[in-house]
Amino acid sequence: MKTYLDCYPCILRQALDAARFTGVNESQQEKILHKVMDTLKHMKLGTRPPEISEQIHSMIRNELKNNDPYEKLKVQSTQEALKMLPWLENIIRKSSNPFETALRLSIAGNIIDFGAANKFDLRKSIQQVLKQPFAIADIQSLQQILTSAPWILYLADNAGETVFDKLLIENLGKPTFYVVRSGPIINDATHQDAIQAGLDQVSTIIESGTRIPGGDPDLGSPEFKKLFNEAKLIISKGQGNYEMLSEFGPRLFFLLQVKCAVIGRDLNVPQGSIVVKQGD
Amino acid sequence: MKTYLDCYPCILRQALDAARFTGVNESQQEKILHKVMDTLKHMKLGTRPPEISEQIHSMIRNELKNNDPYEKLKVQSTQEALKMLPWLENIIRKSSNPFETALRLSIAGNIIDFGAANKFDLRKSIQQVLKQPFAIADIQSLQQILTSAPWILYLADNAGETVFDKLLIENLGKPTFYVVRSGPIINDATHQDAIQAGLDQVSTIIESGTRIPGGDPDLGSPEFKKLFNEAKLIISKGQGNYEMLSEFGPRLFFLLQVKCAVIGRDLNVPQGSIVVKQGD
Repeated sequence: MKTYLDCYPCILRQALDAARFTGVNESQQEKILHKVMDTLKHMKLGTRPPEISEQIHSMIRNELKNNDPYEKLKVQSTQEALKMLPWLENIIRKSSNPFETALRLSIAGNIIDFGAANKFDLRKSIQQVLKQPFAIADIQSLQQILTSAPWILYLADNAGETVFDKLLIENLGKPTFYVVRSGPIINDATHQDAIQAGLDQVSTIIESGTRIPGGDPDLGSPEFKKLFNEAKLIISKGQGNYEMLSEFGPRLFFLLQVKCAVIGRDLNVPQGSIVVKQGD
Repeated sequence: MKTYLDCYPCILRQALDAARFTGVNESQQEKILHKVMDTLKHMKLGTRPPEISEQIHSMIRNELKNNDPYEKLKVQSTQEALKMLPWLENIIRKSSNPFETALRLSIAGNIIDFGAANKFDLRKSIQQVLKQPFAIADIQSLQQILTSAPWILYLADNAGETVFDKLLIENLGKPTFYVVRSGPIINDATHQDAIQAGLDQVSTIIESGTRIPGGDPDLGSPEFKKLFNEAKLIISKGQGNYEMLSEFGPRLFFLLQVKCAVIGRDLNVPQGSIVVKQGD
C-alpha cells in the first residue's frame, strides 16, 4: 500500500511523540519536525508507509542519540499484558469456540500501537473485540489452510500484543516461526520484547533482517525470505505488515484493527473495524 | 496562545481538507502540503495558530485559484441549522433556565468546525451539550457584567454556528454587534453567512477587518478596534478567537467546545469539555 497524503499529518504526530518520549526539549522537538518535513518533501513515489517510517525513526534516533525512544513503553505494555494472561486464558477456556476467541484476543491486542495513536484503552478494546462483528472474516479459509500447513510463519507487530499472539499460537497447534523486527522501531516487538512475553516457549523467534515496521521478504534477511517463500500459511499482524504485504497473495492472512481512515479506505471498511483478511 | 508543535499535524490535515474540498487532483494536493511544510518551517516564534492558518489558507486560495473552498459546506451548515431552529427554540422555551440553555446551545453549535476536524455530529453534540457539566462555568460573572453592560460585542466563529448565536443573542436582551471575518477562511462566518442565518434581525453585523480566523483588535479595522476598546462585555465564540485573545482580560467571556488536546492543555481541562471562561 502506498503512502497517502493523509499519512503526512500522522507521521508528524508520530515523530513528535517519539521525540517527547525521549524527554528532549521543545526546540529539539521542533528540529525533529523540520527534518521530518524535509523527508516527506523528498519522499520517492510509491514508498510504503513503513518504509518512510523507518527513514524517519532512523533520523530521530541519530538526532536524539537514543536507540529506542519507546523502550519503557514497550516494557510496560508487555508487563501489563502479562498480568492479564490468567484472565485471558480463562476467557479462551470458557469459550464455546476457543479458536475464534483466541483469534479475537490476538486482534484485541493490536490496539497496543503507539504508531497509530498515543493513547488507547486495552481493557476496553478486549471487551469490545470479543463481541464486535468482523468487517472481513476469512476465518473458514484460514482454518482450511491451517489444517494442511505443516508449520506457520507468524509476523509480529507490537510489544505487549506479543502476549496475545502467544495465546493464539497455542491455539493454532502447529510449529510456528515468530518474526520480529531486527532492531527497535516505534513500539514494534524485537527479539528481546518477544522473549519477555514468553514467545520462545511456543515458537521459534526469528528476526526480519531490518527495522522496517512491516515485513517484506525482498528487503529482509535470507532466513526470513526463505521461510516466507516456503510457508503455506502466513499470519500477519497489524497495519504495518498489511501496508507492506497487501499485494503478496492468498497465503497471507491479515489480522488487525483498523485504526486509521487510510487503512479503512484501502480495505473498504469503516475505521474501528476488526478484520481477518486473506490476501488477494 | 502560541502555536504548539502539536498544531503542525492538524494544520497539515486542515490544508489537505481544504484542497480536497476544491476537488483538485492528488498531485495538486501534494503541492499544497509541500508549501504548508515550507510555511511551518519558516514560521516566526510566537505566531498564534489563527495567524499561521491565515497565511496557509491565503496560499491555498492563490495556489488553487479558489476564493472559498468551504463555500458549499458553509451554506449546507447554515441550512441544516436553520431547519433545526423550531426544535431549538422549543428547547429554550420549555427550559427552566432559558439563559443557560441558550448559552449551552450556542456552545453546542461550536461543533460545526471544519478547522478542528473534517466530520462531526451536530445533533449528537446538541443532545450532549444540553446535559454535560461545564468544565469551566463563569456564568454568574457573565450574568453580572451583562446586567450593567449597555451593549455587547459578540465575536462570531463558524457558519451554521451563527444560527445558535442568534438564539443566544435573543436571550441576552441587549443591543449586540456581531463581528464576522472580512473574507472567507475555513468555514468561518462572513457577512454573507451571517445574513443567511438571520443575524441582521437581532444584531448589527460588522467585519473584523481581516481574514484571520480569530479576532484581534490590534490587527483589525478601526471600527472593530473602537468597539473592542469600548465594550464592557465581549462574548468570544470558539477556539480561534480564544487562541488570539486568551490574554485580553476579564471583559471577555470565551464560549467554546474544547475540540483539541492543545486547547485542553492551555485551559487545563479535558478534550471534549464545554467552557464558559472569563478572561484573566
